[in-house]
Amino acid sequence: MTLSAIAFAGSTIDRADAIRSDPDKLTALQTWRALLLRMDGLAPVIAPDGGLAWGTLADADPAAELVFLGLTDDGRAGFVAVDPALCGVGSTAPPDPRLWQVMGLLSAADLAIYGAAKALVDWHARHRFCARCGQPTALAKGGWQRNCGNPACRAEHFPRVDPVTIMTVEHQGRLLLGRQPRFPARRYSALAGFVEPGETIEEAVKREVAEEAGLVVRDVRYVASQPWPFPSTLMIACHAVADSADLTIDHSELDDARWFTRDEIVAALRDDANAAFIAPPQFAIAHHLLVWWLQ
Amino acid sequence: MTLSAIAFAGSTIDRADAIRSDPDKLTALQTWRALLLRMDGLAPVIAPDGGLAWGTLADADPAAELVFLGLTDDGRAGFVAVDPALCGVGSTAPPDPRLWQVMGLLSAADLAIYGAAKALVDWHARHRFCARCGQPTALAKGGWQRNCGNPACRAEHFPRVDPVTIMTVEHQGRLLLGRQPRFPARRYSALAGFVEPGETIEEAVKREVAEEAGLVVRDVRYVASQPWPFPSTLMIACHAVADSADLTIDHSELDDARWFTRDEIVAALRDDANAAFIAPPQFAIAHHLLVWWLQ
Repeated sequence: MTLSAIAFAGSTIDRADAIRSDPDKLTALQTWRALLLRMDGLAPVIAPDGGLAWGTLADADPAAELVFLGLTDDGRAGFVAVDPALCGVGSTAPPDPRLWQVMGLLSAADLAIYGAAKALVDWHARHRFCARCGQPTALAKGGWQRNCGNPACRAEHFPRVDPVTIMTVEHQGRLLLGRQPRFPARRYSALAGFVEPGETIEEAVKREVAEEAGLVVRDVRYVASQPWPFPSTLMIACHAVADSADLTIDHSELDDARWFTRDEIVAALRDDANAAFIAPPQFAIAHHLLVWWLQ
Repeated sequence: MTLSAIAFAGSTIDRADAIRSDPDKLTALQTWRALLLRMDGLAPVIAPDGGLAWGTLADADPAAELVFLGLTDDGRAGFVAVDPALCGVGSTAPPDPRLWQVMGLLSAADLAIYGAAKALVDWHARHRFCARCGQPTALAKGGWQRNCGNPACRAEHFPRVDPVTIMTVEHQGRLLLGRQPRFPARRYSALAGFVEPGETIEEAVKREVAEEAGLVVRDVRYVASQPWPFPSTLMIACHAVADSADLTIDHSELDDARWFTRDEIVAALRDDANAAFIAPPQFAIAHHLLVWWLQ
């Protein structure tokens, strides 16, 4: 059980943010050498070599807005198009089994490039209008901003990233894991919830565990983070300690929550047929949290 | 130099999230016993006892939407009204000196209650319309959600919290601090920047330091976090190590960036008149980062 790379992290693209604010440079980069990341709706397209499929700007719908992803490791400008068919639609849904299968074919670096592109395209698709005044917005700064076109408003909008805490809780050598109703049978994973306005990461962890499992925790410790592009969250993985094992499960949030021993977690991470539960998949930072705890 | 409490953290309100989803309970709480947090626009109102001023629901503009803040420590329901005069306006500006002065009068717990209320009211004020379809939205779930009223859309929107990394960088016993153009004279603070879609906290720290100071850093370490209600960010404070002291400052972002010795930082935190720079104020998590590093 090695500590695998965090999925959707490790992009090799240079975001070259100074270029975003320079319309002349952005235009000058849109040559025949520029690369266009091919997308199938919000899913990646796999090239014959098994990597992400890239085309040229000639492949983009002429009506599509273009997002500047950055410079690839061979110095070419990478773009992705906001498919007009997605505009006003997008998706806030978690990935389906077919998307997992396609993503599973990608290298870590390609998965990270896809994840950022997906989060951005989806944000543009779901943010066609100004939340402040209701008028149409237009892409700005290479796709890292949208500006309201209403001269009386002119609000600036930025791609959204929602911080989410996800936590393992330890009590006398056992870990608390829970089941969301949408999970496959026998899957247990770390509890999780959005950070709300007015709380620290540590306060959000304590509140989530109290709400979902009725448990008071202490010694919240940051472990790792992960960008999660469904639709666009920052997963902040933490570990905390409980002084009691008594659970009061909120059944509107969780089907079940249970304490698992070290041996049960080892067996689940090994995919043993007789394991007490099915572990979260490698893509999920919850998997990483379990491996981290064992080590 | 003690490690002070993190400003805007430590609220004593129970967010009682189960109540938010229960319209009957929410209505039942809106009695003469319920408390209304008084606001002067987006600023707090100070009571004669020096705490936050609370009124009753009778004080709210009948046209105002009400946000359920939670249950106070004596079990009463706390609300705040979204002032109709703020709707379509709000503010994304940093606090001005007068607001700092008023906030400085509050206890840590009251400052946290105010911060959450301000972030929420401001979000409602700036999110009157659906970003997906442009039609009006309405408050839902006690103010922790807004729903699009367009039957063909029905998008759900949630209060925004933007993760921001803020970091000290160490090289051979000295710390890198920078000056933003808007800072008061001689003030230096930690570099900072928004976490973007597709990156971890650690990747965001590395990118920001590379962009603003031209420096490669390693060993990024999480230190603490802070909710910052201007307009609504989650400040994620980190520390990193650089192997070089050679800076290439991005003057579109920073007036200056410099390395400071331990003694210079001690003097600045003591407010010595002869200190090499003026330290970030106690409210800022950058202040906390400097004190943490000294310890």
